[in-house]
Amino acid sequence: MVNLMHGNLNAQSSQPDKVDIYLHPLFKHCDDNFIKTLGTISRKITCEKGQTLLFRGDKAVFFYLIRSGCVKLYRETIDGTLAVVDILTAGQVFCEISIFEKCHHPYNAEVVEAGEVIMIPVELLQEEIKNNHQFALDVLRLVANHCRQQERELEHRSLQNAAQRIGCFFLRLLNRREGEGGTFHLPYDKMLVASRLGMQPETFSRALAKLKKETGIHIKGSKIKVDNISNIAKYTCSACSSEFPCKDLDFSKGR
Amino acid sequence: MVNLMHGNLNAQSSQPDKVDIYLHPLFKHCDDNFIKTLGTISRKITCEKGQTLLFRGDKAVFFYLIRSGCVKLYRETIDGTLAVVDILTAGQVFCEISIFEKCHHPYNAEVVEAGEVIMIPVELLQEEIKNNHQFALDVLRLVANHCRQQERELEHRSLQNAAQRIGCFFLRLLNRREGEGGTFHLPYDKMLVASRLGMQPETFSRALAKLKKETGIHIKGSKIKVDNISNIAKYTCSACSSEFPCKDLDFSKGR
Repeated sequence: MVNLMHGNLNAQSSQPDKVDIYLHPLFKHCDDNFIKTLGTISRKITCEKGQTLLFRGDKAVFFYLIRSGCVKLYRETIDGTLAVVDILTAGQVFCEISIFEKCHHPYNAEVVEAGEVIMIPVELLQEEIKNNHQFALDVLRLVANHCRQQERELEHRSLQNAAQRIGCFFLRLLNRREGEGGTFHLPYDKMLVASRLGMQPETFSRALAKLKKETGIHIKGSKIKVDNISNIAKYTCSACSSEFPCKDLDFSKGR
Repeated sequence: MVNLMHGNLNAQSSQPDKVDIYLHPLFKHCDDNFIKTLGTISRKITCEKGQTLLFRGDKAVFFYLIRSGCVKLYRETIDGTLAVVDILTAGQVFCEISIFEKCHHPYNAEVVEAGEVIMIPVELLQEEIKNNHQFALDVLRLVANHCRQQERELEHRSLQNAAQRIGCFFLRLLNRREGEGGTFHLPYDKMLVASRLGMQPETFSRALAKLKKETGIHIKGSKIKVDNISNIAKYTCSACSSEFPCKDLDFSKGR
């Protein structure tokens, strides 16, 4: 039996329920019995800001599903620079590769906004992948969708300027609400958005000012008001090979 | 039965043999019978430079394995700029997502160096994935490995300068030959290397000159002579979170 209280995890934990597990579409083809077992063996833990959930190089024993709060995945280069791999919020998952491959964590995971995280022992999922063909295909789709998102990001690093890349980040938050405008909050701190997009803080600030000027959006703290989404789409998506709204948002909660 | 002569494919084709199919480790857990069927139903086609193998948006009906030559995967942005997704050489594959998901091609594929390509109907592989659990896991590993390589590239776009990114490209060609030096040829034209790395030709030329100065490599046409690999590794890998030699090269032929 795996030890759920390893590392410096907070001892506050409970059993996740069905609603917690079904939060992620990955489990949509798993039957009630399996979900019940998952609920019994997995743990839902309360995390504080700054808490490290896992260290790069450690053996992967859990699959993680974020119930609330915000988690940063990152690595450090040999000369000590921080490389942010991703920043994930409620409904998103990480360590999916450990479901089908014995591996060591390729990144560190740190809580950047307090919340709850569900830790599911990968042993259980490795069994399910053998017994449930549909689950195996769903894991494949999750990984493939992640691949597609990375492909898009790589394309943007070559073809879009910094302001357009922030525009794309905003469009994906506004997700599919074509035409009309709307108000939304940044999912996490502005400096974290900058690091997620691989930008220095000063580059990010300059690019945000440019995006405001080009598209007429209003920014107040973490609140972004957009009068017409098409303005951002026109400015941003002209330098992208996808059309707005992006098709890869279908499985967006799967990272 | 799928029509193998669609699009503007060259009519010169033959049956691939066992050696062709086993060229890729993806098929290592498939039995002889299945490989025999693959050999009968698949086609090995002779491709000319400039030939388009598939168009973005077309329904995916084949999985492709490159026997020789060189294939460019690319997209175009709405404003007409070319975005190179990847450039693949002998032993590499593409359209792996179509093995487990009905999809339309997310890119165009064009032959940039004449050679032979094996086209395997995805219907066959979709059947095998249902019947052969180990094959399903191997497809997962192929996609996951691709994911890891993209993750590394994304990290490099943020943290490495252009010369370091070319250095990394060279190191991966020298693959695992630690310490000692060596001579190798670029797998394709210099301008294609630039586009593969998402660089403008002039950026690439400047960065290549810088890499030469920093690491003492010798370049003559497509021939690169390296006296000591450690010099490139020291210069390049200091701005990367992986250590040389990279672990993700294990499944390198799988893209």
